[in-house]
Amino acid sequence: MTTLDDLKGRLLEVDDLSSAASLLKWDQATYMPSGGGIARGRQVATLTRLAHEKLTDPAVGKLLDVLDKELATRPDDDTDRALLRVTRRTWEQSVRIPGALVSEMSEHTARTYQAWTVARPSNDFELTRPLLEKTLDLSRRMANCFPGYESIADPLIAFSDYGVTAKSVRALFTELRGRLVPLVRAITKRAPADDACLKKHTPEADQLAFGLEVIKRYGYDFDRGRQDKTHHPFMTKFSQGDVRITTRVREDDMADALFSTLHECGHALYEQGIRADLDGTPLSAGTSSGVHESQSRLWENVVGRSRGFWTHFYPEIQRAFATQLGAVDLDTFYRAINKVERSHVRVDADEVTYNLHVMLRFDLELDMLEGRVAVKDLPRVWGERFHADFGLAVPSDKDGVLQDVHWYDGPIGGAFQGYTLGNVLSAQFFDAAVKAHPQIPAHIERGDFAQLRDWLTQNIYQHGAAFTPAELVSRATGSPMSIEPYLDYLWKKYQPLYALTEDERR
Amino acid sequence: MTTLDDLKGRLLEVDDLSSAASLLKWDQATYMPSGGGIARGRQVATLTRLAHEKLTDPAVGKLLDVLDKELATRPDDDTDRALLRVTRRTWEQSVRIPGALVSEMSEHTARTYQAWTVARPSNDFELTRPLLEKTLDLSRRMANCFPGYESIADPLIAFSDYGVTAKSVRALFTELRGRLVPLVRAITKRAPADDACLKKHTPEADQLAFGLEVIKRYGYDFDRGRQDKTHHPFMTKFSQGDVRITTRVREDDMADALFSTLHECGHALYEQGIRADLDGTPLSAGTSSGVHESQSRLWENVVGRSRGFWTHFYPEIQRAFATQLGAVDLDTFYRAINKVERSHVRVDADEVTYNLHVMLRFDLELDMLEGRVAVKDLPRVWGERFHADFGLAVPSDKDGVLQDVHWYDGPIGGAFQGYTLGNVLSAQFFDAAVKAHPQIPAHIERGDFAQLRDWLTQNIYQHGAAFTPAELVSRATGSPMSIEPYLDYLWKKYQPLYALTEDERR
Repeated sequence: MTTLDDLKGRLLEVDDLSSAASLLKWDQATYMPSGGGIARGRQVATLTRLAHEKLTDPAVGKLLDVLDKELATRPDDDTDRALLRVTRRTWEQSVRIPGALVSEMSEHTARTYQAWTVARPSNDFELTRPLLEKTLDLSRRMANCFPGYESIADPLIAFSDYGVTAKSVRALFTELRGRLVPLVRAITKRAPADDACLKKHTPEADQLAFGLEVIKRYGYDFDRGRQDKTHHPFMTKFSQGDVRITTRVREDDMADALFSTLHECGHALYEQGIRADLDGTPLSAGTSSGVHESQSRLWENVVGRSRGFWTHFYPEIQRAFATQLGAVDLDTFYRAINKVERSHVRVDADEVTYNLHVMLRFDLELDMLEGRVAVKDLPRVWGERFHADFGLAVPSDKDGVLQDVHWYDGPIGGAFQGYTLGNVLSAQFFDAAVKAHPQIPAHIERGDFAQLRDWLTQNIYQHGAAFTPAELVSRATGSPMSIEPYLDYLWKKYQPLYALTEDERR
Repeated sequence: MTTLDDLKGRLLEVDDLSSAASLLKWDQATYMPSGGGIARGRQVATLTRLAHEKLTDPAVGKLLDVLDKELATRPDDDTDRALLRVTRRTWEQSVRIPGALVSEMSEHTARTYQAWTVARPSNDFELTRPLLEKTLDLSRRMANCFPGYESIADPLIAFSDYGVTAKSVRALFTELRGRLVPLVRAITKRAPADDACLKKHTPEADQLAFGLEVIKRYGYDFDRGRQDKTHHPFMTKFSQGDVRITTRVREDDMADALFSTLHECGHALYEQGIRADLDGTPLSAGTSSGVHESQSRLWENVVGRSRGFWTHFYPEIQRAFATQLGAVDLDTFYRAINKVERSHVRVDADEVTYNLHVMLRFDLELDMLEGRVAVKDLPRVWGERFHADFGLAVPSDKDGVLQDVHWYDGPIGGAFQGYTLGNVLSAQFFDAAVKAHPQIPAHIERGDFAQLRDWLTQNIYQHGAAFTPAELVSRATGSPMSIEPYLDYLWKKYQPLYALTEDERR
């Protein structure tokens, strides 16, 4: 056996354990009966701890050292060298965190998630408060395994968005906020769009069938995936051949399941598009949470809420939901799915106000980590900040601090910045694709997504984690991440929708 | 930490790994997309190998030695001593089998199961033949880890039915066969029952709803379980709080899903009834495949196909399936669900001919293991033997050698004897319950199963694996296993159904 085979064998075992843990979590979020919760938390923790033990085995460190020399003469873009780089990065993160902390966090997270599924519908923050306090403590302990950080959030952000820091996020958010707030203000001065056509009773089965039909056309491969129902939709992967999505359905809001399905499908297209030969290695994953989110938002919004998309699909959805949409014209529907309003729930928010929700959470994460806000005060502080940003009172914790699964399904810190990075990148990637293939918008108008998907696969998906997020963005778009394409995209879309005037653009 | 806590902690880790592997297999048999098969096989193999490694750690042997002394003065029925006995037995079996063989068998089994799900519907034995040849080889290698056996099947039988040997099974089967064959002959001389009422088109959703309603009354706890669809129904357990069953539905045969649901529910009642404090230890499982099957057959047949049961449930099923059964009287329905006939498929077989199916498979297992029958000749030999036993030609491998999931989901050897042991024990246990509570049959007639379930919980379920099968039978029924209660049961049920005469009873 070569040194490289030895390393790959060990990484495959780690992958088997992590994938099994992912399946246990998927099951917990979809089908598991409530009685299974306690043991399930322990089981996930055991698998997570064993995966961590196998990865941080000192033998892995030695193999990495040997391979650094063995592969030194290979070209920079050699796959095995990329494997080495990414493995070393993960290994160096992992060896700093004690196994006991890893499994404590994992077991605690499973318990907290289970409590959240009860607390949210019953609007009972108190049920989760002590759990969240422990989450905060565990998150701090995890961050403190990486002394020398500038912000305590930095190590937590680095787990999901390599190369990003609290400082760089804050700079980006400040700039973005300065441009978004006036846009929100301008739009909300206009008469709000009428979205009553989306709120008619639409049977669950019909909604699910239509969503599945659209993602089939997007190119989601059902031989290597499936969709199930859950509380808070997510995408998960057990191997290159099994990339699943989840959704939820509200019979009084047809937009909910549909756009959640398109969103998760975007994540899944990324994972399904990774080169098959990377399967079972640390390279077989999206390169960061921000780049991942760029794909979910691209397929959900840039494509799925575009006029071109609905030029093709509107007659189809009218046939599918004849009672609800038979008498509604495309313009009304298009305005309804792009209604901009100050609202309470992030995942229901429109594209313009969405990032303000993210910023609120990001700041609160930092406030908690840095000790300025205690968990017990979170509902109050959330309410104050929300009122300041949105001019609205928070009617209940259910639509406030309990609304997101994050914080309840992992550490506090690093959970939210990826959403806004994703929004920003979604426009930048789409622009680059259209620059390369100007006929993409015309193809979308006839329900053909192959060329767009192929460009994304070629430039983003296939590489998995082989490039860092920054490298990937530069290679794919020719420039570093920039908010301009995103702001242009928003302007071009919302200016005609709300008859904005040129002097409202800043 | 005490020595006992140390042992229990290790066993809990083994249990977490095995339970995770069980969930991976459940998922493979219910929801997994086909593309996930290859990685899934490897993942299950990894977890199985790690569980084996953890269990066979020499430290476990040392702990057992120390604890043997530490607990020597405790009474024989002490739970920790039972834990010690069962753990030692499993440990001694496991240390003899090399880890590599365990994971090879596991991975091979997953691949073979996946092939079987394709081969069966397409009637393609050839697709599974090379896999089955390897299964036979692996099964032999597994058995040969236990030199000194009398029959090569003995070690494989011992995995699932402790205390049972090929010789003892053969003796039992010979005796039973001598009594069953004349009974089958006598019954099949009569006009066959008319079961047309069961074969009318009945929508899947209606069938599932009715089955769920019945097992709710049986006492299946849905907070600690659920039912899903699969190819070949089974019960599986991930913890004391999560004991699941699976079923399948044929819209042209309403008996199929219903009795499969009652059957798997019987297995689940056993597992759900085990004392909660045994969870996560080797004691938290049924004590043997035979005793397990006694419970599935008891709830499926002794209760579920009894006149008393349907006295209560017939009006309900008539309401549920009004189109199909509205005009059918109870007598006709009762005769239909107890129709005795020579037929091809074991799981569809009636109670009288069922054991002849098992005997055929048991003998073929031995023939293969002992080299008298090659896998490639299996379809032919199956056909010859089937014709000799049932007087019927086998129309296709689908209804012949491909019909059972066993052999395709584990070793060849030890897979079938439990079914007949279970039939025999089902009547013996039921008799003992009725002897203790003579009002049980009257309760069943009003749809009340609490007293029967309580007796079974008290005498069988709660103990898990704490007693050996033989001990459990003696304690619960006051005598060793005997075929007489079973033959009595069959006679009392089928004599009036088919107007058998006293001289046909031998």
